[in-house]
Amino acid sequence: MTKIAFIGVGKIGQTIAFNTIMDGYADEVMIYDIIPELPEKFEHELRHALASKRLKVELLSTNNLDDVAGADIVVITAGKPRKPGMSRRDLFVDNAKIMMDLANKLPKKNHGAVYIMVSNPVDMMASVFARYSKEFVISTGDQVETMRLRAYIAKKLKIPVYRVNGFVGGEHGEDAVVLWSTVTVNGKPFSEDLGVTKAEVEDYVKKIPGEIIRVMGGTTWGPGTIIAELIRAVALNENKVMSIATPRQFEDEIIHVSVPTVVGSSIGPSLENLLDEKDRWNLMASMKDFYNVYKENLKHLETSIQAQ
Amino acid sequence: MTKIAFIGVGKIGQTIAFNTIMDGYADEVMIYDIIPELPEKFEHELRHALASKRLKVELLSTNNLDDVAGADIVVITAGKPRKPGMSRRDLFVDNAKIMMDLANKLPKKNHGAVYIMVSNPVDMMASVFARYSKEFVISTGDQVETMRLRAYIAKKLKIPVYRVNGFVGGEHGEDAVVLWSTVTVNGKPFSEDLGVTKAEVEDYVKKIPGEIIRVMGGTTWGPGTIIAELIRAVALNENKVMSIATPRQFEDEIIHVSVPTVVGSSIGPSLENLLDEKDRWNLMASMKDFYNVYKENLKHLETSIQAQ
Amino acid sequence: MTKIAFIGVGKIGQTIAFNTIMDGYADEVMIYDIIPELPEKFEHELRHALASKRLKVELLSTNNLDDVAGADIVVITAGKPRKPGMSRRDLFVDNAKIMMDLANKLPKKNHGAVYIMVSNPVDMMASVFARYSKEFVISTGDQVETMRLRAYIAKKLKIPVYRVNGFVGGEHGEDAVVLWSTVTVNGKPFSEDLGVTKAEVEDYVKKIPGEIIRVMGGTTWGPGTIIAELIRAVALNENKVMSIATPRQFEDEIIHVSVPTVVGSSIGPSLENLLDEKDRWNLMASMKDFYNVYKENLKHLETSIQAQ
Amino acid sequence: MTKIAFIGVGKIGQTIAFNTIMDGYADEVMIYDIIPELPEKFEHELRHALASKRLKVELLSTNNLDDVAGADIVVITAGKPRKPGMSRRDLFVDNAKIMMDLANKLPKKNHGAVYIMVSNPVDMMASVFARYSKEFVISTGDQVETMRLRAYIAKKLKIPVYRVNGFVGGEHGEDAVVLWSTVTVNGKPFSEDLGVTKAEVEDYVKKIPGEIIRVMGGTTWGPGTIIAELIRAVALNENKVMSIATPRQFEDEIIHVSVPTVVGSSIGPSLENLLDEKDRWNLMASMKDFYNVYKENLKHLETSIQAQ
Repeated sequence: MTKIAFIGVGKIGQTIAFNTIMDGYADEVMIYDIIPELPEKFEHELRHALASKRLKVELLSTNNLDDVAGADIVVITAGKPRKPGMSRRDLFVDNAKIMMDLANKLPKKNHGAVYIMVSNPVDMMASVFARYSKEFVISTGDQVETMRLRAYIAKKLKIPVYRVNGFVGGEHGEDAVVLWSTVTVNGKPFSEDLGVTKAEVEDYVKKIPGEIIRVMGGTTWGPGTIIAELIRAVALNENKVMSIATPRQFEDEIIHVSVPTVVGSSIGPSLENLLDEKDRWNLMASMKDFYNVYKENLKHLETSIQAQ
Repeated sequence: MTKIAFIGVGKIGQTIAFNTIMDGYADEVMIYDIIPELPEKFEHELRHALASKRLKVELLSTNNLDDVAGADIVVITAGKPRKPGMSRRDLFVDNAKIMMDLANKLPKKNHGAVYIMVSNPVDMMASVFARYSKEFVISTGDQVETMRLRAYIAKKLKIPVYRVNGFVGGEHGEDAVVLWSTVTVNGKPFSEDLGVTKAEVEDYVKKIPGEIIRVMGGTTWGPGTIIAELIRAVALNENKVMSIATPRQFEDEIIHVSVPTVVGSSIGPSLENLLDEKDRWNLMASMKDFYNVYKENLKHLETSIQAQ
Repeated sequence: MTKIAFIGVGKIGQTIAFNTIMDGYADEVMIYDIIPELPEKFEHELRHALASKRLKVELLSTNNLDDVAGADIVVITAGKPRKPGMSRRDLFVDNAKIMMDLANKLPKKNHGAVYIMVSNPVDMMASVFARYSKEFVISTGDQVETMRLRAYIAKKLKIPVYRVNGFVGGEHGEDAVVLWSTVTVNGKPFSEDLGVTKAEVEDYVKKIPGEIIRVMGGTTWGPGTIIAELIRAVALNENKVMSIATPRQFEDEIIHVSVPTVVGSSIGPSLENLLDEKDRWNLMASMKDFYNVYKENLKHLETSIQAQ
Repeated sequence: MTKIAFIGVGKIGQTIAFNTIMDGYADEVMIYDIIPELPEKFEHELRHALASKRLKVELLSTNNLDDVAGADIVVITAGKPRKPGMSRRDLFVDNAKIMMDLANKLPKKNHGAVYIMVSNPVDMMASVFARYSKEFVISTGDQVETMRLRAYIAKKLKIPVYRVNGFVGGEHGEDAVVLWSTVTVNGKPFSEDLGVTKAEVEDYVKKIPGEIIRVMGGTTWGPGTIIAELIRAVALNENKVMSIATPRQFEDEIIHVSVPTVVGSSIGPSLENLLDEKDRWNLMASMKDFYNVYKENLKHLETSIQAQ
């Protein structure tokens, strides 16, 4: 029995859930959202799609968080979406409150599940959820950037995307860092002589989500597919290396910063110690930055809560 | 080489294109929309998704219809969407003008392709496109209703959906008719004794799209999956029976009314003559109704054109 | 719950079972063979393969036919294989006795299953099994020839095989007939002008199995894949048209002769009446031939039984 | 363009090639064997199977090694199979001569390919091939044992196999060592309290291939599936951790001993340094043993060559 819960089925939540369900491996999927009728109508759509694909997946849709019980994997997309022009960190306080609420409620009936955070700012929301729930939570982190990196290089060099390897690490978003020691093309280390510069690759990874959001109102198909692949790697123990953030102690807090990590039914080890010095140094810098901003944000959060 | 073109990538067009592209069988996919930057940004999203799925599909996005050339299959979703409360036929005149334009332009560079109509009112748009293009065009017709029928019975009887067989025919939408002689459960003819009445099934098939549209703003995941399965049946010659509408001469017009039909690289035969008398009679009545309304709509169209 | 039983796991039985099990849709698979330890060791191999594919399928292996119970689908490959130089009909008496035994035993615990015959001479074995079991049994018939037809034309014309449509009907083996009215290339009716003659196609379909048997000792990968596709079409209600033989009354016997037929959780209708006159005439001739030889074979069988 | 070559299509070579080809991702597959007509007849079987699966893969079959050119991946199964009762090392001299011949011929037209060794004794054959070809060759090593480990624990504990993680390392065969620090069940470290002892697991991994060989004449379905998964991980850059052997310098020789390793279009890093001390010690012992036996075998090889 593989039981997966989706907490939030807005645009991105729907896309992830759809991809996961159509993969057919889950025995049971629970769909929760706060909006009345939305989970139920989405369930109808999914049933029509499953009929066409001849797949059997038990679906339960609900507006009642108490119905979400016994999940092996809990995928959290609840929260406000990132609007055009808004930074990921702007969202912190509002969405952190939602995470505190979920951290209070979800573990009661889903203790021991693997929690997968998608809500933005994703790494910090994972840390907040970990802080208040004491559960094992991973952030989808830079796996999305990782695929954008590969897609860009492949398109530029006109080669199939599976000939490009490499990972992006650090905090998801504008501060993500390309781990250049991991990047290969046709199995050989990356070189700018191939016809693409590091600068343009980094620029693409940083700017493309904003561009997509400007025109399409949000990123859905990319992250929705990539995160569904992450869920499958956990559910089916695929032992795939992905750039996600697992909880790590950093000074007095548990933080989430992405590093290439083996993902299966057990998650880890991270490959951090196998990277070259420069990449390790960049990751360490990311963690420090993350920690500082996170601590500051936590203060804002407390202030905001006391003001209520 | 399998080359597929998507004309229009709004909500439903995106969902169909995404499903088709992620299936991985197409060699090349062309994405056209009239909205500036939309095809291009959608292409980026798709590339990120393809990177994650390790798939190689050539993508071409464009705002220029002339770039769409050499397609084996052309999927048309362009046109206004059906808004809450609006009947499918209300859309006729506005979307028929778009079809006339496409019928004029697309065949020049895509003669002999299989055209698949999705824009609503879908059967009439197929007939309009056939009338003005002289190309072979099918309507996605009642394949969506067919899957809703099976999904409902399966859920009600708590059995896997692939134990329910059966087709819906006639015009897509409120006037579709369940072809009860084709409906079986666990391989046995349908009977109300199983615990579900014909009336409630017909009611569900008729009303569920409106319910979904009311809450979600449109139907996407269901049709988006079902129509992608239809495209695959054509592209890969799956020889699957689906309830779609192929062009047929009826008095002085070519019309499109859904009948269970063998779908492959060649489309047909239809199974109409293998149905029981009652179902055949219902289909014949559908065709007459369709013809009458269609002729009336064509007059409105002419009037509207002359008024321009 | 989809439960499938394999009766016999020699070379061909193993290949079909492997393909079916690795498809991942079956909930439970029962593996029976008369050879001690063979089902059990085969089960180990399958478990290692399932581990690698991250699939969950319940497996039960046994040398005791009584353990085979509650199957939805029973696939019969038991019996002597066709040896180099041996005609399919030579096998009749020996294998018919095995079918009589299975027809006596299997229905007790698997009444109402769909029985799929693979043992040769396959159509006659289906008829024998139907005669003595009173169960619904189909013969895999000419679906294998159908795919050989398409493969040959595609290779000759250097086009993807899914651009070739068409079916072979009649008795499986040397007397199968190409149903030329169904053959299309790139969606257009077959013509010898394309660069391949009807004679050479028919010759290939007739002779290639003997050629493969001569060098490889038997045909496995082709039929093993094609028959697994047939099983899936039944199990998942794929509504695919395949050239298989369903039971039909012909004079005083139930016989099995292949015709393109819709295959799903309910099997049928056959498309015989939608074929052109020449193809229908050929099929009718096949049935008569089949009936005559079958009756004669049944006499031999009776004589052989009385002599025991 | 993904081009894969299979050198040798005996029982195991056929099974690997079949699984790889039916996966559909390869653009072109070359099939070589020394036995006259075997590749060609196997190609026919594969074409029939591809027709049924609606897949397009270019196939080239040949008895001429010179036809094998431009491959991205070369899979070597040529050589004598391991017969019942025969140890893997007994095969060394005979098969090493075949590898020396292939090492001489294959690189001329396939320089820079990823060579994947399957012929037994597999790790030593990889080292021999590396020694004489100077190409990058990996041994399929203990990935097969790894899956046998998981399959056994899952069956014993009656849980889905994808809830069991863990790897086997060291030399493929009787001397493989379970890397217990990597073994988890339901995401938690392995404990004998779960109901299965380390001793019985190790016993199973060691003895099951001999048991299968005794009854079935060889292991095919397990390794054939597992190795096809390895090929796909390389071809599609899946970044999966698998227990395979990459070339490593050990004293004066390049040797191949399995360690969990990230497999993609670039292969590595190995996770050796992330294992616990005991597992690392066991691996080190394996390498020493391997080296000693290998050196001795190389002497036998030389003697044998000089005697010719």
